[in-house]
Amino acid sequence: MLLYNSAVSGNCYKVRVLLAHLGLEYEMADVSVVDRSGRKELLGELNPGLRVPTLVLDDGRPLAESNAILWYLGDGTQYVPEDEYERAQVLQWMFFEQYSHEPYIAVARFWIAYSGSPDAFVGSRHDRALKGGYAALDVMEGHLAERAFLVGETYTIADISLYAYTHVAHEGEFDLARYPAIRAWLGRVAAQPGHVTIDA
Amino acid sequence: MLLYNSAVSGNCYKVRVLLAHLGLEYEMADVSVVDRSGRKELLGELNPGLRVPTLVLDDGRPLAESNAILWYLGDGTQYVPEDEYERAQVLQWMFFEQYSHEPYIAVARFWIAYSGSPDAFVGSRHDRALKGGYAALDVMEGHLAERAFLVGETYTIADISLYAYTHVAHEGEFDLARYPAIRAWLGRVAAQPGHVTIDA
Repeated sequence: MLLYNSAVSGNCYKVRVLLAHLGLEYEMADVSVVDRSGRKELLGELNPGLRVPTLVLDDGRPLAESNAILWYLGDGTQYVPEDEYERAQVLQWMFFEQYSHEPYIAVARFWIAYSGSPDAFVGSRHDRALKGGYAALDVMEGHLAERAFLVGETYTIADISLYAYTHVAHEGEFDLARYPAIRAWLGRVAAQPGHVTIDA
Repeated sequence: MLLYNSAVSGNCYKVRVLLAHLGLEYEMADVSVVDRSGRKELLGELNPGLRVPTLVLDDGRPLAESNAILWYLGDGTQYVPEDEYERAQVLQWMFFEQYSHEPYIAVARFWIAYSGSPDAFVGSRHDRALKGGYAALDVMEGHLAERAFLVGETYTIADISLYAYTHVAHEGEFDLARYPAIRAWLGRVAAQPGHVTIDA
């Protein structure tokens, strides 16, 4: 398999974490998330959205969207539940991640830490990102206050998905001090056998 | 089942379309998408994101996120493929919908047609929504130019998901005149047996 990857992208990191858990071999092609020129030539035939991660399977078929890739690789393993309701809950949390979490927390982190022009990200845009991101963290904190993991009793791809940008939220100037349940959960995720760090 | 529903929400409409195809009986509770007061009391125990649709199953268990609900109801029927790669492609298009399509096309439609304060949605916010929405429509047009449906050869929940806000994109001031493949696909979706309109 070939993973079109960015070292700093949390969306790409999700896929690397699961591939490490599963012990699957793959190659990587680096794609910049800052300089987006050349993406059409590189990814146009594989992923019309021109985003990373894009995974090319051994038979050449491409797959895009980080959480769809997690499902494809994880289904049938211990990282995706068998129960129909729990499977839907895993998807619920991954759609929450893409709609209510990533657009605020990942975007703030990108602008502040990686864009090269953090000054362009001030005022109402930054304020909206902080407000939306803290709303998402509030939801996670309430849910995790009574649970070890997001769905059922075990670690799933939903945890991998939400861990990716939550554990680096401070790079977007989010303060996790008032989120003890999230911080404990981050520790449980990082302690999973085969876990790899984002800069591994 | 009980569906917490908004008559104008495309996300809720997705669920009503699939329930109609499947011939499943359900009740509805109306939730305003304009006046959001009281949502915590109404939905707090069911969906920490406080969004609609929220579906309460016959046994009382709740499920949120429109596309996760589509998967739960559709898996095992003709509306979700059996092939693992096609299943992942269905998810890929539904994550595309929530990340790259809905935040622009649904949001522009809401502000212009339903918010009651369209004048608050001008300038850079509207420009960003138009730019992002047309980028998503460009992706769909290129993909559908050579295909009858989004995944495989048949109508799936991916089509239901992307139909919901695409077919009312004009309410957000998107012009579909230059998207013939999308318009033909909209016609094929609307012609499916058991299809219901958003105002049915």
